[in-house]
Amino acid sequence: MAFELVTGATIGILGGGQLGRMLALAAAKLGLKTHVYAQDPESPAFDVASARTIAPYEDELTLAEFAGTVELVTYEFENIPSRTAAILADSCIVRPGPNALAVCQDRLAEKEFLAAAGIAAAPYMRVDDAGALARAIAKIGRPAILKTRRFGYDGKGQVLVREGADLAVTFRTLGGNPAILETVVPFVKEISVVAARGSDGAFAAYDLCENVHENHILKSTRVPARLPPEIAAEATRLSRVIADALDYCGAITIEMFVTRGAGDAGQLELYVNEIAPRVHNSGHWTLDGAATSQFEQHIRAIAGWPLGAACRHGAEGGGHIEMENLIGENVLAWAKILSEPGASLHLYGKADARPGRKMGHVTRIVQGAGS
Amino acid sequence: MAFELVTGATIGILGGGQLGRMLALAAAKLGLKTHVYAQDPESPAFDVASARTIAPYEDELTLAEFAGTVELVTYEFENIPSRTAAILADSCIVRPGPNALAVCQDRLAEKEFLAAAGIAAAPYMRVDDAGALARAIAKIGRPAILKTRRFGYDGKGQVLVREGADLAVTFRTLGGNPAILETVVPFVKEISVVAARGSDGAFAAYDLCENVHENHILKSTRVPARLPPEIAAEATRLSRVIADALDYCGAITIEMFVTRGAGDAGQLELYVNEIAPRVHNSGHWTLDGAATSQFEQHIRAIAGWPLGAACRHGAEGGGHIEMENLIGENVLAWAKILSEPGASLHLYGKADARPGRKMGHVTRIVQGAGS
Repeated sequence: MAFELVTGATIGILGGGQLGRMLALAAAKLGLKTHVYAQDPESPAFDVASARTIAPYEDELTLAEFAGTVELVTYEFENIPSRTAAILADSCIVRPGPNALAVCQDRLAEKEFLAAAGIAAAPYMRVDDAGALARAIAKIGRPAILKTRRFGYDGKGQVLVREGADLAVTFRTLGGNPAILETVVPFVKEISVVAARGSDGAFAAYDLCENVHENHILKSTRVPARLPPEIAAEATRLSRVIADALDYCGAITIEMFVTRGAGDAGQLELYVNEIAPRVHNSGHWTLDGAATSQFEQHIRAIAGWPLGAACRHGAEGGGHIEMENLIGENVLAWAKILSEPGASLHLYGKADARPGRKMGHVTRIVQGAGS
Repeated sequence: MAFELVTGATIGILGGGQLGRMLALAAAKLGLKTHVYAQDPESPAFDVASARTIAPYEDELTLAEFAGTVELVTYEFENIPSRTAAILADSCIVRPGPNALAVCQDRLAEKEFLAAAGIAAAPYMRVDDAGALARAIAKIGRPAILKTRRFGYDGKGQVLVREGADLAVTFRTLGGNPAILETVVPFVKEISVVAARGSDGAFAAYDLCENVHENHILKSTRVPARLPPEIAAEATRLSRVIADALDYCGAITIEMFVTRGAGDAGQLELYVNEIAPRVHNSGHWTLDGAATSQFEQHIRAIAGWPLGAACRHGAEGGGHIEMENLIGENVLAWAKILSEPGASLHLYGKADARPGRKMGHVTRIVQGAGS
């Protein structure tokens, strides 16, 4: 394969949060420099980057200057204005590419992409105005979830439509933005497939993640997910189909619902919930628990380098791994966690522990009976 | 125990090489900021530090300013001018402390310290001038090694005194600096104990390292060292005695020779060769192969935080770990190493692959038969 970047090259990272920070740390391990572009002067990624630019994502002149200082641009979040991505793509490689961005930053485009690929997702209808919402409810029923097509994350940009709710008011709740209405999937489990696809089409998935959300924010991940092996294999297979169809390059995470078909003895089924075209919170355990972290995997992929081994530490002994997010005041337990034998603490260098803010995470490798 | 630093605090690091760089990366994982002070504008550690100062180690004004911006100072090398350490100690905590520095930066002080602690080292004599060298040779015999008391590393500052060598010329070879003459120890193996001691006196040693040097530079490390368990236990015990006697705080490495006593069936014996009051090249495998890296261990110790678990990944399956240094042009193999399944590559971000320069390292976790 072609090694597109050479060691010593500079990677530009759009976004300065914890994902950008951990990407910069992974780049440094491989001898690469990073230039982080972010709006907030207090961005955690600035602390570990070789160069920093503080500017709005719409500042075209500064974007062009930034692009001139780097060999390649990547991003820590998919909600990049398409104009921003286009300006950067004019002067350097942007990975993952514009197609993946276009599909993943718009819930409608994502649903249509999945349908075209023949992959099951929750039934949905397009909702551009309050009238369309009424027609969608008539078809899908209640309860259902109304989600903005763009800029949603951690439960932002979505609202549950219950029995009796006023539809015009509900539509205005989301700012009157274009949306989709989705069936509430009665899942038995939420899982994610954290994987990466190289510039040569190679694909490497980690062991599956079983996720627990609280208030729409990931609370904890358990690896491997407790699933029948054939369901796990199918989830991984679907993820590769998706990555291939997007001609994807970089780390990718596919969130899925595991549901039970009709009847108590119904078979388990998989519904794709969301595609994240980036490193993902449910893959943070790979920093401590895998031969190659998802952050290094992303850097290797976008640099045009071979993917690393995705095997999990301790897997041979039957153990498992638990990752717990430290959200808001959870982080005040940092000293206690440091005292806990075998716990690996990661703090993101954020000063202000606001409610709902991701402040850090902790990984615990739990030995199995066979160890 | 007292948690002296809080997360978000800034640690000052003297020295901007790869050790400073990996210390800064470990500090970032724990939510700490770093301020790196180094002389070379191209210092690799600058790329991952929150703040940088480029100045000579003798620049007292700049040192005082630097000390004012950090909560605590540590260093990546022991050859710090004592005046520099004293200036810093005036305004902040310096760890490891002045006693460890004084002992470890002077080979004579180190030998005297070991003798006082009752720990075996190679026989030596103090050599302050050419006349003293002649008297030392008369007592110790040839071949022997003449070593400057200060500022030696990677074979610099030492010379082998062979049969027939002119002693006045030999003494001048080392610049006429105060030195010691040491017996050549006919070792069967070189090992090191990488460990850490917390501010509360807790001690954690990693599995022993078996080291191979080439041209006086560490070439590779194999963990665990192939030694009878009672010798390994004795090496670890001696290391704790040393760390305790220094009232040490931070990561520490003790290099030792394993020798065979008189006769073919002679018992194995241990001689301490050198004490490194810092993270050490032979401990780089801990980044990939241990629950807590030596760099994180050092940061935890100096911050007054509990030490982490020092257990080795894959140990339960009977596997071992190999670390190979990439020295000078060895680094040109980086692309090949990236393609090697399971190899973990670390590059230090140095532009110029000069002969003898440490450019990176690679870690390989070798599965055991029991995996």
